[in-house]
Amino acid sequence: MEKTIYWQKISETSGFSRMIDQTVIPEEFKTVDIKSSDDMYDAIKTMIVRGAPAIGIAGAHGVVLSAIENKEASDYKTFLSEIEKQAEYINSSRPTAVNLKWAIDNQLEIIRKNSDKTNEEIIELLVQNAIRLEDEDIRINKKIGEYGSSVVPKGATIMTHCNAGALATVGWGTALGVVRSAWEKDKTIKVFADETRPRQQGARLTTYELTRDGIDTTLITDGMGAYFMNKGMIDVVITGADRIALNGDSANKIGTYMVAIAAKYHNVPFYIAAPKSTIDPNIKSGKEIVIELRNKEEVTMINGKPVCTDKVNVINPGFDVTPASLITGIITEYGIFKPDEIYKLFE
Amino acid sequence: MEKTIYWQKISETSGFSRMIDQTVIPEEFKTVDIKSSDDMYDAIKTMIVRGAPAIGIAGAHGVVLSAIENKEASDYKTFLSEIEKQAEYINSSRPTAVNLKWAIDNQLEIIRKNSDKTNEEIIELLVQNAIRLEDEDIRINKKIGEYGSSVVPKGATIMTHCNAGALATVGWGTALGVVRSAWEKDKTIKVFADETRPRQQGARLTTYELTRDGIDTTLITDGMGAYFMNKGMIDVVITGADRIALNGDSANKIGTYMVAIAAKYHNVPFYIAAPKSTIDPNIKSGKEIVIELRNKEEVTMINGKPVCTDKVNVINPGFDVTPASLITGIITEYGIFKPDEIYKLFE
Repeated sequence: MEKTIYWQKISETSGFSRMIDQTVIPEEFKTVDIKSSDDMYDAIKTMIVRGAPAIGIAGAHGVVLSAIENKEASDYKTFLSEIEKQAEYINSSRPTAVNLKWAIDNQLEIIRKNSDKTNEEIIELLVQNAIRLEDEDIRINKKIGEYGSSVVPKGATIMTHCNAGALATVGWGTALGVVRSAWEKDKTIKVFADETRPRQQGARLTTYELTRDGIDTTLITDGMGAYFMNKGMIDVVITGADRIALNGDSANKIGTYMVAIAAKYHNVPFYIAAPKSTIDPNIKSGKEIVIELRNKEEVTMINGKPVCTDKVNVINPGFDVTPASLITGIITEYGIFKPDEIYKLFE
Repeated sequence: MEKTIYWQKISETSGFSRMIDQTVIPEEFKTVDIKSSDDMYDAIKTMIVRGAPAIGIAGAHGVVLSAIENKEASDYKTFLSEIEKQAEYINSSRPTAVNLKWAIDNQLEIIRKNSDKTNEEIIELLVQNAIRLEDEDIRINKKIGEYGSSVVPKGATIMTHCNAGALATVGWGTALGVVRSAWEKDKTIKVFADETRPRQQGARLTTYELTRDGIDTTLITDGMGAYFMNKGMIDVVITGADRIALNGDSANKIGTYMVAIAAKYHNVPFYIAAPKSTIDPNIKSGKEIVIELRNKEEVTMINGKPVCTDKVNVINPGFDVTPASLITGIITEYGIFKPDEIYKLFE
């Protein structure tokens, strides 16, 4: 399977991160090579790479790049602390998705456990671990897809918000992984994709990757979901998540909460599909999740042109939190959990 | 007060319809002159003029233009039937808003009541009635504003969807008429405006006309409303309507229904502001309201550029129906009614 993001080895201890540039789809489909840890911060911040699992891998690659940059550090302590500093910087690029921190910590752990090794040896281990995380992400998504396909009735229309697809992960996808697994078994399923303003990941990315696979996909605007639910045209809603609290409250792309409320009102099941690494064992409820506020221009400009007067104020939260009470189930690589039982994954 | 749309007299029996071109705001602010009844169909269809009350006036002007075009008709019967034919054509331009039909019927009634008069005399009466309807629309909106301002708490933030403002009417506005009347009394109120995809009337028109008046306006995307309600930042939602059934079910711009569901979930009061002419006494419930399906490109293109792959399907309903059970009250020129009491206006 083609990977959305992967480590391009030059040798066992050198290389760079190659990723699909998600800011230019569907006009262009090209890859970008990120060769420094500073550039990785920018790539995450500007959303060249996006999607909680994908930015996790980007973070893991960022740690490798930082280690390569500090290869000549005179002692282990300096080597570690320089990388930790840079890792913290990369982690600050996007505050909401926990996978970034999770993957960075996973890499830092490798360094901390190998204080007896040379810098060069540690870099080799970091490269190996980064590639392992990539492969593991695909395996996890396939499992999520397998479990999740059980909640998709025959011939169902699945609604989704934003892009939790192959592009948001290393491959296959979480919410769209469920779609893909369901579609492998039943070619009559369909997808309704919210365009997902302001960044339009639904319009730009979800419709792109699903139609490329031949899956019947209908694009709707973010205000239309309830209309189609009311008509009985939506059988199930499945979205990804960026951070899940221990009580099952789930942060995902702005607009998800509104879809979940509409789904509840119409008794349409609403599922979150996400790997265990998206669950933050350090927070008890969604109230503790920091919501990233993004720039005004994402709302006021589309395709480089303003859509409104410049005298307007804008507040642009990148995410919202859907409370556990609106979530039918959380689909993970370990099975499907009721939101109030998701904490059991950490027992 | 500057009128959004008005009859420009040349003589008592000639002239044309002048209207603000709503398709080019905020880039440009210009008027368009419509001089034939066929062009009036196009102006309504392409949304040069939009908003239920404004297209009502456009319909009334269209009947005048048709009468002028048939001035030489040899007898009254031919004169009437030609105009009726053209009126039906104009009325077919947009099926959902009832004000169009209401105003056209109001004009046809003038012709039917004056079969003893010459074509020229009837045209004069039609011109007079069109101008009367314009003036009446502003008076009605001021009354709606006056009644509606009582539901706006001091310092409140009002959320609205689409544009039910001066631009959607002859002047002052319905939902935004309430905002204006409230603002005249209390300069600390604020507005949150949904951008209202796909046509972005909220971003393009509502933010334009409110900020021009100096009213503090924040633009949000259609998926954000619930986020701000959850934060306690929205005190009341007020929108316009395009057709209201006798049971209070109200059709309005697509996305309104989703906002109403979110408002109910958060116990935020949700009001419709509309003149009596928006209530259709011929339908008992919202199920009977015909929803206009519009073209694919409104969803797939923004600012002339595609936002998605061309392989995608689109369904583009222009309106949705908010059931009476989600509506706190309907603000009319006769006062504020519980939705299930709105039928009393016709008793």
